[in-house]
Amino acid sequence: MGENDSLDQFLSVAIEAAKRAGEIIRKGFHEKKNVEHKGQVDLVTETDKACEELIFNHLKQHFPEHKFIGEETDAANGTTELTDEPTWIIDPLDGTTNFVHGFPFVCVSIGLTIGKVPTVGVVYNPIINELFTGVSGKGAFLNGTPIKVSSQTELVKSLLATEVGTKRDKSTVDATTNKINSLLFKVRSLRMSGSCALNLCGIACGRLDLFYELGFGGPWDVAGGAVIVQEAGGVVFDPSGNEFNITSQRVAASNPHVKDAFVQALKEASK
Amino acid sequence: MGENDSLDQFLSVAIEAAKRAGEIIRKGFHEKKNVEHKGQVDLVTETDKACEELIFNHLKQHFPEHKFIGEETDAANGTTELTDEPTWIIDPLDGTTNFVHGFPFVCVSIGLTIGKVPTVGVVYNPIINELFTGVSGKGAFLNGTPIKVSSQTELVKSLLATEVGTKRDKSTVDATTNKINSLLFKVRSLRMSGSCALNLCGIACGRLDLFYELGFGGPWDVAGGAVIVQEAGGVVFDPSGNEFNITSQRVAASNPHVKDAFVQALKEASK
Repeated sequence: MGENDSLDQFLSVAIEAAKRAGEIIRKGFHEKKNVEHKGQVDLVTETDKACEELIFNHLKQHFPEHKFIGEETDAANGTTELTDEPTWIIDPLDGTTNFVHGFPFVCVSIGLTIGKVPTVGVVYNPIINELFTGVSGKGAFLNGTPIKVSSQTELVKSLLATEVGTKRDKSTVDATTNKINSLLFKVRSLRMSGSCALNLCGIACGRLDLFYELGFGGPWDVAGGAVIVQEAGGVVFDPSGNEFNITSQRVAASNPHVKDAFVQALKEASK
Repeated sequence: MGENDSLDQFLSVAIEAAKRAGEIIRKGFHEKKNVEHKGQVDLVTETDKACEELIFNHLKQHFPEHKFIGEETDAANGTTELTDEPTWIIDPLDGTTNFVHGFPFVCVSIGLTIGKVPTVGVVYNPIINELFTGVSGKGAFLNGTPIKVSSQTELVKSLLATEVGTKRDKSTVDATTNKINSLLFKVRSLRMSGSCALNLCGIACGRLDLFYELGFGGPWDVAGGAVIVQEAGGVVFDPSGNEFNITSQRVAASNPHVKDAFVQALKEASK
């Protein structure tokens, strides 16, 4: 089996896993209002765990030699170190706040790194039925149709996405809103959807021109989306302009044309 | 014909108009990337005008005695005064920035006021196929299923939506981000979707708990959504806590339980 065959198999098994987990999410999303007595936190935890178990089992069955990193697993067992081995990095339910509230931006995010490089990405929103996929060297797709990043060259016409995160100490909140204040003078408008993985996919399909987020949960939020952005012709980088580090909990993405102006604006926004 | 029959007829004719306009929007939304040479502004203007003409003609054909207020018409002819007469207030394409960028929060918004009171509301997102409807005294619906506002009672667990608007002078931007800064310490998280009418519908179906916006375009942004929120058990009010004024370009909405705490937080955020 050649390398390309392997990549195709990795992708198709990951898609199967994402779609099955998506069914669990969709069920929980629509049943939510009927199970309020169970407690919302329980429903999230149950859905999250059931999805992670399903995805891990499905992938392990096909690829028993591979390594695995997941949000749920890591929260329980401490962070697993990322090695050069083929490693599946999984967020079984990205957008948990949206899930709790019924806001339709939730997804399964599955990424495979090989030599620490994101190589296969699958991000599936089961509520509005959008499946984003990407494989290194083979392009990016939304429901099977090729996608590409926007052709926007001007910051002032760009649509920016970011998130306010979950930390509510004064210095984090002040830094967050100061950045937004500075950036608002330079971009067209601002969106917050509540899912890091779906924001990356928004960049990949050109719905969004600029995205940055600091302090998100871990590599599972970006491992799937990073491949999809790159294969759609986009760039993923550290908000400082430095190289993207999947374990750093800092990410920015855009098309290549506006990257330099975006990095400059982010620098000015951090002053 | 009794009053109820009339209201039912007003609703069904408005739904027909919204669905037909929705087809034009959907076509433009998906064709957008192929017509970039035409200029995005032209596409928006064309779609906006075609939708408004379609909606106005359809409603006028059925209700020749009624008055009409629309975003496009008013921009051309100056604002039409709202009277006690049955008046259709129409935003043929809410979320124009989203339309340009392909971000799937766009909608047709149609509201009917009688005695200046919003009485019939239809908000249709043709991209993700969600039709929100409401008629005074008859409930609110999403694709025909009854909806209700969230049962959230605590601000700290509430999901807030707002928008940054289009004004980019320093005092507006500073006021906008100062408010957000203050509110972030009190709510769970923040969403910005880019459509005032869909934010109101988000409140109505419980996806969002709190929404406010200042300085939006006009009554067409809120006339449809206001009925839908109220019929879903929610409250629409001025962000100061005073009575809602459809012509004031200021709106807030929530469920009744969190309203007082929300108004208090908005007051503290305006200091």
